[in-house]
Amino acid sequence: MNKYLQHDPWCIIEDGFHESKQLESESIFSLGNGYIGQRGNFEEYYSGEKMIGSYIGGIYYPEPAEHGIWKNGYADTNDKIVNAPNWNIISVRLNDERLDLASWDVKNFKRTLNMREGFLERSFEATNFKGHRIQVTVKRFLSMADTESAAISYTVKSLNFDGHISFLPLIDGDVRNKLTNYDEPFWNVLQTKTEKDVCHLWAQTRRIDFHVCGALTFSFYKNNELLNVNPTKIEKEKVAGFSVGTDVRTGDTVCLNKYVAILSSLNHPREELTTCAREKVKLSRDKGWNQLFAEHAAVWDEKWKQSDVIIDGDLEAQQAIRFSIFQLNQTYNGNDARLNISPKGFTGEKYAGATRWDTEAVCVPFYLCTAPQHVSKNLLLYRYRHLQKAIINAKKLGFENGAALFPLATFNGSESHNEWELSFEEIHRNGLIAYAIYNYVKYTGDESYLTDYGLRVLIALSRFWSQRVSVSEEKKKFVILGVTGPNMYENNVNNNWFTNYIAVWTLKYTLECIDKVKKNDFVKFEDLIHEIGFLNDETFRWKDIIKNMYYPTDKELGIFVQQGGFLDKTLIKVIDIPEDQRPVNQHWTWDRILRSSVIKQADVVQGLYLFEEFFDLKTLTANFNFYEPLTVHESSVSASTHSIVASAIGDKQKAYDLYLQTARLDLDDYNNEVSEGLHITSMAGTWLAIVQGFGGMRVKDNKLHFSPHIPDKWVSFAFNIRFRENQLNIRVEKNSTIIHNLKGDNIELYIDGKLIEVLANSQREVKI
Amino acid sequence: MNKYLQHDPWCIIEDGFHESKQLESESIFSLGNGYIGQRGNFEEYYSGEKMIGSYIGGIYYPEPAEHGIWKNGYADTNDKIVNAPNWNIISVRLNDERLDLASWDVKNFKRTLNMREGFLERSFEATNFKGHRIQVTVKRFLSMADTESAAISYTVKSLNFDGHISFLPLIDGDVRNKLTNYDEPFWNVLQTKTEKDVCHLWAQTRRIDFHVCGALTFSFYKNNELLNVNPTKIEKEKVAGFSVGTDVRTGDTVCLNKYVAILSSLNHPREELTTCAREKVKLSRDKGWNQLFAEHAAVWDEKWKQSDVIIDGDLEAQQAIRFSIFQLNQTYNGNDARLNISPKGFTGEKYAGATRWDTEAVCVPFYLCTAPQHVSKNLLLYRYRHLQKAIINAKKLGFENGAALFPLATFNGSESHNEWELSFEEIHRNGLIAYAIYNYVKYTGDESYLTDYGLRVLIALSRFWSQRVSVSEEKKKFVILGVTGPNMYENNVNNNWFTNYIAVWTLKYTLECIDKVKKNDFVKFEDLIHEIGFLNDETFRWKDIIKNMYYPTDKELGIFVQQGGFLDKTLIKVIDIPEDQRPVNQHWTWDRILRSSVIKQADVVQGLYLFEEFFDLKTLTANFNFYEPLTVHESSVSASTHSIVASAIGDKQKAYDLYLQTARLDLDDYNNEVSEGLHITSMAGTWLAIVQGFGGMRVKDNKLHFSPHIPDKWVSFAFNIRFRENQLNIRVEKNSTIIHNLKGDNIELYIDGKLIEVLANSQREVKI
Repeated sequence: MNKYLQHDPWCIIEDGFHESKQLESESIFSLGNGYIGQRGNFEEYYSGEKMIGSYIGGIYYPEPAEHGIWKNGYADTNDKIVNAPNWNIISVRLNDERLDLASWDVKNFKRTLNMREGFLERSFEATNFKGHRIQVTVKRFLSMADTESAAISYTVKSLNFDGHISFLPLIDGDVRNKLTNYDEPFWNVLQTKTEKDVCHLWAQTRRIDFHVCGALTFSFYKNNELLNVNPTKIEKEKVAGFSVGTDVRTGDTVCLNKYVAILSSLNHPREELTTCAREKVKLSRDKGWNQLFAEHAAVWDEKWKQSDVIIDGDLEAQQAIRFSIFQLNQTYNGNDARLNISPKGFTGEKYAGATRWDTEAVCVPFYLCTAPQHVSKNLLLYRYRHLQKAIINAKKLGFENGAALFPLATFNGSESHNEWELSFEEIHRNGLIAYAIYNYVKYTGDESYLTDYGLRVLIALSRFWSQRVSVSEEKKKFVILGVTGPNMYENNVNNNWFTNYIAVWTLKYTLECIDKVKKNDFVKFEDLIHEIGFLNDETFRWKDIIKNMYYPTDKELGIFVQQGGFLDKTLIKVIDIPEDQRPVNQHWTWDRILRSSVIKQADVVQGLYLFEEFFDLKTLTANFNFYEPLTVHESSVSASTHSIVASAIGDKQKAYDLYLQTARLDLDDYNNEVSEGLHITSMAGTWLAIVQGFGGMRVKDNKLHFSPHIPDKWVSFAFNIRFRENQLNIRVEKNSTIIHNLKGDNIELYIDGKLIEVLANSQREVKI
Repeated sequence: MNKYLQHDPWCIIEDGFHESKQLESESIFSLGNGYIGQRGNFEEYYSGEKMIGSYIGGIYYPEPAEHGIWKNGYADTNDKIVNAPNWNIISVRLNDERLDLASWDVKNFKRTLNMREGFLERSFEATNFKGHRIQVTVKRFLSMADTESAAISYTVKSLNFDGHISFLPLIDGDVRNKLTNYDEPFWNVLQTKTEKDVCHLWAQTRRIDFHVCGALTFSFYKNNELLNVNPTKIEKEKVAGFSVGTDVRTGDTVCLNKYVAILSSLNHPREELTTCAREKVKLSRDKGWNQLFAEHAAVWDEKWKQSDVIIDGDLEAQQAIRFSIFQLNQTYNGNDARLNISPKGFTGEKYAGATRWDTEAVCVPFYLCTAPQHVSKNLLLYRYRHLQKAIINAKKLGFENGAALFPLATFNGSESHNEWELSFEEIHRNGLIAYAIYNYVKYTGDESYLTDYGLRVLIALSRFWSQRVSVSEEKKKFVILGVTGPNMYENNVNNNWFTNYIAVWTLKYTLECIDKVKKNDFVKFEDLIHEIGFLNDETFRWKDIIKNMYYPTDKELGIFVQQGGFLDKTLIKVIDIPEDQRPVNQHWTWDRILRSSVIKQADVVQGLYLFEEFFDLKTLTANFNFYEPLTVHESSVSASTHSIVASAIGDKQKAYDLYLQTARLDLDDYNNEVSEGLHITSMAGTWLAIVQGFGGMRVKDNKLHFSPHIPDKWVSFAFNIRFRENQLNIRVEKNSTIIHNLKGDNIELYIDGKLIEVLANSQREVKI
């Protein structure tokens, strides 16, 4: 826990330089645009602690996997996000003295992340040991309008210095990963070239042939007038750039605008990379800072219209929810089905930057509500495009007949994680991928997705489940042995209730979709089943499984049992674990964790959340009240899921308490780990805790439902969502809910079970 | 499976050069003397496939552990056996041509491991591309009389070569491990030095300060006359030695005897290492080959007197059991409580050369019967000396009050293995360490061991179990959650029957020993409990656990259930698994193995074996018949344990079939893995299958019992054992058993339940 940032509705502000918090600040002040991402590293040289981080969507490194002991079925590589050539550098010199905030005297430091317009600004005064004093203002953004472009404006005013000021705008290809490659370089720099005032650095990832070209150019101003300087070219083996400078006197202001383009072979032919990158930065410079920024800010304006949340009466909460929405939009723009969302987004190396089931669990619902339909559709297509690899993955594990097991963590569809207890056993991810299809179709009504893509995936998933279950002669039931449920603090269990449930649900939903697609487009249906060799006979076993699955339950307690044997454990409430042993994953051995009853994250409760409609209030309440007190919420998406269920069962206080655990997780650094990066996917959970939790939003039978309640501390809260053709603003006040139909036709929806109609371009208030 | 070796009662013979089998032969033809070990590498240069292996007991390398994902409680290092400076080299040149069996034409190749006298001999004719032909005979041994000494006699006869023959006896410090260090050198060579005709190489292991010095000298003969040559010194950065040569004509014979000493800082002050090593080789040379060899062979003669097994009517079996006894005596001599036995002994790098619970499970019973008492006692003291580290290890995992968890694999008492499912969970090893104490006291009658060492260990083990169990409110019983039983093909299970059983047995035995020691030596007892803070109150919980432990059982099937939920599995008999999927660990994914019912090795049956006396025949039979058909015996100690239990329940055919699976495991390379090294500990199991299985040997109430039966194929079999003061030979024939009391007083023992007395120095026949 750690509060050094100022509260503000639209900005994250660090007032005064918190040197010991620089790693944390680098995470918090990260920028991204869904294609490239950049930690809040300083542009100028900095000798203090830092973690340089510059990332490009879709570019990863397949590090050969080393294993203590190999297990058959493991992947050959551990793929990981690559720290990419660093385009963020502008070194600054006063005569021969290099500006360095770690060694210079710094005053009036202020750093601001402006979320409304999506830029980072920093200003400070700095004095070196010779007494030379300057005032610095730096502003940068990664364009949301042209995601291959970024720009930095670096302004220095001499406060007492007469002499030569020079700037070194650079691209550095000599970068390494900090956490994962133990000093092995991931890049071959193929070319560094400077020509006039444009330069580029062309690099290739080792072992796998991704090419990246970063180009830069600049404009240089003195006292707001463009200077035509003759730059010194810097063209080293792994660094390209310029040194430009001018003489100044006290009161003079010099400014360097650095224009950057980052292109990759994912989007351009390799042979055109350097030319395209150079052209792009020239165009950016011609366009100029203001125009470039205006185009960028316009995109943010539109994003906020679609996704803003307003909380009246709680400035901290207001800031935090905007931070979440901002980061989610920085991480994923939904324009490229090859990209996805890793738990840390573009803000750090942890979790290797790979995609996990967070995407289906929390991100899909967020983007469904806050972005055009193609955005969430592309998240689904990501898995669709990986279907063949998921089939190969399942085959490797002994499954047949086109059964698919999607990877636990991936960049390209192949498994990139190698812990048997997760990659082989944490298989509910397959259920969540089915659920995301269900969710998407339910929210958008787009049944054509099933015909064109979804059904093919669903059948492959159902084929997996039908082979993964086995029969217990003892129980005379189908069982699922050897799994790791969402609670990863227990591995290789039998009959995880959630896994068994979502397996059966997948089979049911697939059967439903088969009927639907057959009806909607018989020709395409016939083509599909012919192509994948699907036989109706397969469904006999599915129906048998649906009818005869074993679900561990305890009738006396009235609960679903998390897994076979869970009640053999000595149940310890989290409240009885001493504070100094929390989080337990930092204080207990794995041995102790495994044997304890401690639950890492929503497990049975994950099922309650996803399948709420199938359970009565008594069941929901009994299970929630049994499991929540055992749960340490040491996954960042746990508290939000619990908060939503708490809202659903009417436990408002618990809902709010749990919401607080997730709301400012990163801004206040609850777990002392924000230095490693932000919990991007968890932020979608925070948003869901407001909209599905406090707002009580559900979709049933093609209609929106709300059953809002408001935390006591808040005066009101409002959120923007898209629902099919409509753009809506829902404002929840103490005694009423106001629906504003901003765009689209008249819409019918339910408030607290009561059907109302809101006419186009109008609003309607419903009193409680 | 692979048979290229000749059958012989006392020798292992390779007739003709099996080049493609060289790696296998290197393992088979390994030599050792309990302190140093040497794979069957050729002395001369060999460009073919090879795995150089020279090992020194107690010298290991603590490689920093790298983990995909760190789990709290893991060890910081993976310790592993080190390939030590190679003293085995004698390079041979004819003029400038280097002898190389991979490129020269080889005829009449014969390699013989003489087990009776413990030496390796090799002879062949070789012709190079110039047509030069020589006949070679090489003989080497690692002295059992002075374990720091080894000698090689290398004889070359010119068959048609007139010219210069030279020998290069060397020690090479530029050695690496093949399997484990990925080319990282483990040694710093501190000094190479030649002086007159003695040289040494002094090296230090990196990261940990073991010092080793290898010294060598030689005698050089031509036509059996000693030559006083002036050797060329070889003194490179990492190699030391000489080049000695002479001119020869057709028919001449030259011979180089190389005398080697290998000393380590485990036994000598570092500063004296080089001097001592040099002195030792000079003494060896002065003593001369014949005397040195005679002293060595005399030790083997005595070993065979104590441990030989004679099988009449089955040459293959005869050869194999002698190979087992030979290898076990080569691996461990019991003179140093700092050393122990790793599964591969000194024959390869696999399993990192660390000590595991094989020691207690099979090796202790073997050495108890075949070696002086101090040998097995030292195996026990190995654990006693590691008790404090085992307490620290348990503490790291959260256990208190002096509870001990011994490591899964170790060199120095610390855990050197890092798979949570084994290091944290495969805890029955703790039970086996208690059982070894029980076994030792039962066999030797040496209750003073309990007073001086054993009870301290037992209390620490019981303290562990009493904390490791927990209470299941549901079952109203004590349970043990999260363990991996002996069947490692299933991890993190609850209530493994064997683990629960041995835990309770340990508590009972500890209580028994507390009473015994209290009675035997009250003063020492008081000192002990004072020192370790033992309170009688602790035993209340132990007694509670003894009374209320949960044992999974199935009354209908009349069996103990391997673990909670085991009967949920689809039970597949091994006979129904297609041959081409065996061994399953090479063909199935880990995922499939975990979910299957396949049992790797004796699990419930391990309990039947250890605690046979507590079960009636019906129970033993029902469990054996249920579990054996599910067991793939993919651990090398599985078949022998099963064979013994099969003998005990009177299933003679099964006992013999299972014995065959273990008897020639390495000689016939059943699992195509002997290239990696021999299954040393499993060889003790083979011996037990004969003595405890076919011989039916047990100890009850200080008396030996036998209930022999003989495999149909055999005419008779006989084994030598020591029992306390007596040396006995037991010969089992078709219709009678003959006990020969070779040494010691009159002895009373039981044959098939009938008490007989065998007078000193006489024999007695009991008819069936």
